[in-house]
Amino acid sequence: MQLSELSERSGVSVASVKYYLREGLLQPGAAVSARRSEYDEDHLRRLRLVRALLTVGGMSVAQARDVLAAAQDPAFDRHSRLGVAQYLLPPRVTTPPAGTPEAAAWQERRAEVLALLRDELGWRIHDGAPALDALTEALLTLNSLGYATTEGTLRDYANALHPIAEAELDVIDEHPAIDEAIEAVVAYTVLYEPVLLSLRRLAHEDVSARRRR
Amino acid sequence: MQLSELSERSGVSVASVKYYLREGLLQPGAAVSARRSEYDEDHLRRLRLVRALLTVGGMSVAQARDVLAAAQDPAFDRHSRLGVAQYLLPPRVTTPPAGTPEAAAWQERRAEVLALLRDELGWRIHDGAPALDALTEALLTLNSLGYATTEGTLRDYANALHPIAEAELDVIDEHPAIDEAIEAVVAYTVLYEPVLLSLRRLAHEDVSARRRR
Repeated sequence: MQLSELSERSGVSVASVKYYLREGLLQPGAAVSARRSEYDEDHLRRLRLVRALLTVGGMSVAQARDVLAAAQDPAFDRHSRLGVAQYLLPPRVTTPPAGTPEAAAWQERRAEVLALLRDELGWRIHDGAPALDALTEALLTLNSLGYATTEGTLRDYANALHPIAEAELDVIDEHPAIDEAIEAVVAYTVLYEPVLLSLRRLAHEDVSARRRR
Repeated sequence: MQLSELSERSGVSVASVKYYLREGLLQPGAAVSARRSEYDEDHLRRLRLVRALLTVGGMSVAQARDVLAAAQDPAFDRHSRLGVAQYLLPPRVTTPPAGTPEAAAWQERRAEVLALLRDELGWRIHDGAPALDALTEALLTLNSLGYATTEGTLRDYANALHPIAEAELDVIDEHPAIDEAIEAVVAYTVLYEPVLLSLRRLAHEDVSARRRR
């Protein structure tokens, strides 16, 4: 197909397609003449992925390039390719500067959380997972405002969320093509967050209504 | 206790305490002289609640005033008092203007979601719940980007989140005092959101690692 059809079928404007080509986010088409290239289904898939990374995932062009590079690197298996994408999704948390008392408290809390998830629950997660920082920050904020957070609570949350993650990975694994799988990771991770949070609030309302007094 | 001690014990600055008094968010102390008032544990509790509404809950002074008015209105039972607080928490979603095709699609989708949760799952939720709007928006965004959302998926999420909400309400119900219970609703609803979302990401990583290929 020509560039105009690629734009039409993907819903990405011609100007954006050209921009992605210039930035190396989209592989060049096959040149059929000096001024015309031919594009195929791979381009369409990649275009959907690039749009997902930049718009849904809120990534910079440089971050999207990293995700795409990992996706094509034979040294990375599928798990790592999906992981690169997930790790680059916002929110990214700012950790306290090294050497400060805040950094010490942070590291201590982070180590506790990691021990709970990895050693006790057996979760196979990486030391450097950005979500560990986000979790640490959330717990420290709770504590600084005077709300206790127990290991038991955290374990309950973790156990309740694990089956959700299983079901979500089932959907992601329905996509054998890596471009589509990465796109699904971005879409699921980001776009289902408000679904989860609003359903939780509605569940609160239901439980409270049942206990009405 | 005097105002300075109230400030110290609550961690709220003297200037802020005076501001809350002026705005009617904090009930006046008992006057012991022309320039001195006496405050008690009720003030301390209320101060914690006001701070939670404004800072954690991100409410305006007017919204916080509505929550406090409902908390003291004998026409409201405990369920409704907690509900007023939850309904005023961000994010608030902007619904499309009435009469537009977007509004029609919105209403249709919202009605489907409500039917699933209320008629099929039996959730006791109110027609006007803001979280229903947030949920509708999230689902329409997914669809507009080409991601299908089935009733089955939504049902699975709802069922997985319900026990979490039960456990959270258990904690909230440990507070018989309404000020403390409302504070707990705000804190739980808002501050545990990043906990949930980051644990879900870590669960994704674990599931993906187990299926590694």
